[in-house]
Amino acid sequence: MTTVTLGIDVGGTNTKIGFVDKHGRCLASKSIPTGADEPFSNFLSNVFTTVDQLKEEAGEVDMVAVGIGAPNANYYNGKIEEAVNLKGWGKEVAIADLMEEHFKVPVAITNDANAAALGEMKFGVAQGMKNFVVVTLGTGLGSGIIVNGDLLYGHDGFAGELGHINVVEGGRLCGCGRRGCLETYVSATGIKRTMFELLADSNGTSSLANKNFDELTAKDIFDAAEEGDELAKEAFDVTGEILGKALADTIAIFSPEAIVLFGGLASAGSYITEPTRSAMEENCLHIFKGKTRLVVSNLEGDNTAILGSSALAWQEYEKKQVNA
Amino acid sequence: MTTVTLGIDVGGTNTKIGFVDKHGRCLASKSIPTGADEPFSNFLSNVFTTVDQLKEEAGEVDMVAVGIGAPNANYYNGKIEEAVNLKGWGKEVAIADLMEEHFKVPVAITNDANAAALGEMKFGVAQGMKNFVVVTLGTGLGSGIIVNGDLLYGHDGFAGELGHINVVEGGRLCGCGRRGCLETYVSATGIKRTMFELLADSNGTSSLANKNFDELTAKDIFDAAEEGDELAKEAFDVTGEILGKALADTIAIFSPEAIVLFGGLASAGSYITEPTRSAMEENCLHIFKGKTRLVVSNLEGDNTAILGSSALAWQEYEKKQVNA
Repeated sequence: MTTVTLGIDVGGTNTKIGFVDKHGRCLASKSIPTGADEPFSNFLSNVFTTVDQLKEEAGEVDMVAVGIGAPNANYYNGKIEEAVNLKGWGKEVAIADLMEEHFKVPVAITNDANAAALGEMKFGVAQGMKNFVVVTLGTGLGSGIIVNGDLLYGHDGFAGELGHINVVEGGRLCGCGRRGCLETYVSATGIKRTMFELLADSNGTSSLANKNFDELTAKDIFDAAEEGDELAKEAFDVTGEILGKALADTIAIFSPEAIVLFGGLASAGSYITEPTRSAMEENCLHIFKGKTRLVVSNLEGDNTAILGSSALAWQEYEKKQVNA
Repeated sequence: MTTVTLGIDVGGTNTKIGFVDKHGRCLASKSIPTGADEPFSNFLSNVFTTVDQLKEEAGEVDMVAVGIGAPNANYYNGKIEEAVNLKGWGKEVAIADLMEEHFKVPVAITNDANAAALGEMKFGVAQGMKNFVVVTLGTGLGSGIIVNGDLLYGHDGFAGELGHINVVEGGRLCGCGRRGCLETYVSATGIKRTMFELLADSNGTSSLANKNFDELTAKDIFDAAEEGDELAKEAFDVTGEILGKALADTIAIFSPEAIVLFGGLASAGSYITEPTRSAMEENCLHIFKGKTRLVVSNLEGDNTAILGSSALAWQEYEKKQVNA
């Protein structure tokens, strides 16, 4: 009988579910459609059926807790609240309570960036750290901030929105309706916008001049940089410089041991880390210079999001053991 | 026998010392010269002598802990490190250890903004709060950030430098050597610099046109505003707008229950709070709008800094009681 937690990562399109042991081994996992336009009850029964299947696959497991990473997840009340990508689910769903009723074990939820931070602390590059920041670079920019070994949730459970700090006064239009937010520059979408600005400025002297806005991806920009495209490299430099400056401010606020880059854009390696590190150090307040490490997540593969969610479950389980 | 803590606030010029009971009553206090250019041993023996005098004055007290607020104070190791305003004391002084040796009670140190935050939590407007931010508006801008009821210290003990986040790219020269730091705009010095920019822009159409840079104070600008000087009012508006925008970002990061303004500039009342609140709400990410209160400290008078330092002592004392 292996003790495991269940990690669930709810995405706008697919939901990943898996059993994870205390060493971060994923014993069985599956991806199911989220069904964001259908009633929430469909999602629930799909999850329950899937967990039964996974139990058969994983063999003898003792599932002691469930962790869920989801957009607009409120750790405090266990609800997903007003998630724009989960329209069919309505204004809010008490996902933690409903799962707890079914599984009869503790269930906790948080957003995906927070889950990523817990995943890094339990299984990844931040093992042993008590103060660090994880920046997730996907379609947008998310952050999970660990203070004294615990996630920063704030008063209402939604703290840690580094993607929406202002970095350019009157800058790019953001999905949040405001202008100049960090994620409009630093994210897969952000670097694409930067690439288009550079194409405009240089009158299209790049191998990417044949891509339209809808089809261009951050991966295309990376591939072009690998093939020596100077403008693609410059797009990474511009992105890294803006990120590095924002991280210098983040360091002044949190004085973290490390900042961990996570997600698609982070896998571009030194194209993104070098300009970021350089701008971060250059713009750092003198008392913090050289103190905070910039590292890339070492959690890889399809099950990374499951690991993060399961880390939340492990944390809740361990807290309950201590208090028991 | 009244149980008290000793609060010590070390300033560049003067040091305030006093006994504070658990209700925040200051039973006896005194201000002594810090002697920042003399050896640290002089300061220590002055403090010891003063405490003996205060004991006579306060009557029967049981001093259970000491809290010290000081520039560049490191909570973790109890040292004041490389404080530019305390040159005679050398590179670092182990002030907590040396005091502990003498007083035979727990001694803790932190910087003055952190002490202010603890003071607000124990005795002031933040009683009962677990997530809030105190912004101290003095010569510079300091911040004390409370997360889950504890001060945010970060990895090295120096977290919470909101005064040095960048708010204007290539902006005003800061004492830290960089440009555009928040405190170059939002502080007693910052509003004076703004006033001079406005005087330049308006060709001196203000009652403050007869003051030179060295003599103009934030108090002068407040007095001029009170007398209807439009440019002085505008200086407050500009200051509040920059502060409010920075606080909108602070809310996105911390989602605090309240932001508490503290110190000289905060006492300008609605001249500073109204433009600040307005810019804060306007620039807030939608999910945080209307959630964070902006309040002014209600701790007043000569002993405010002593209260903050003593709150640190009370916190340490209570932690020890819980763990005993």
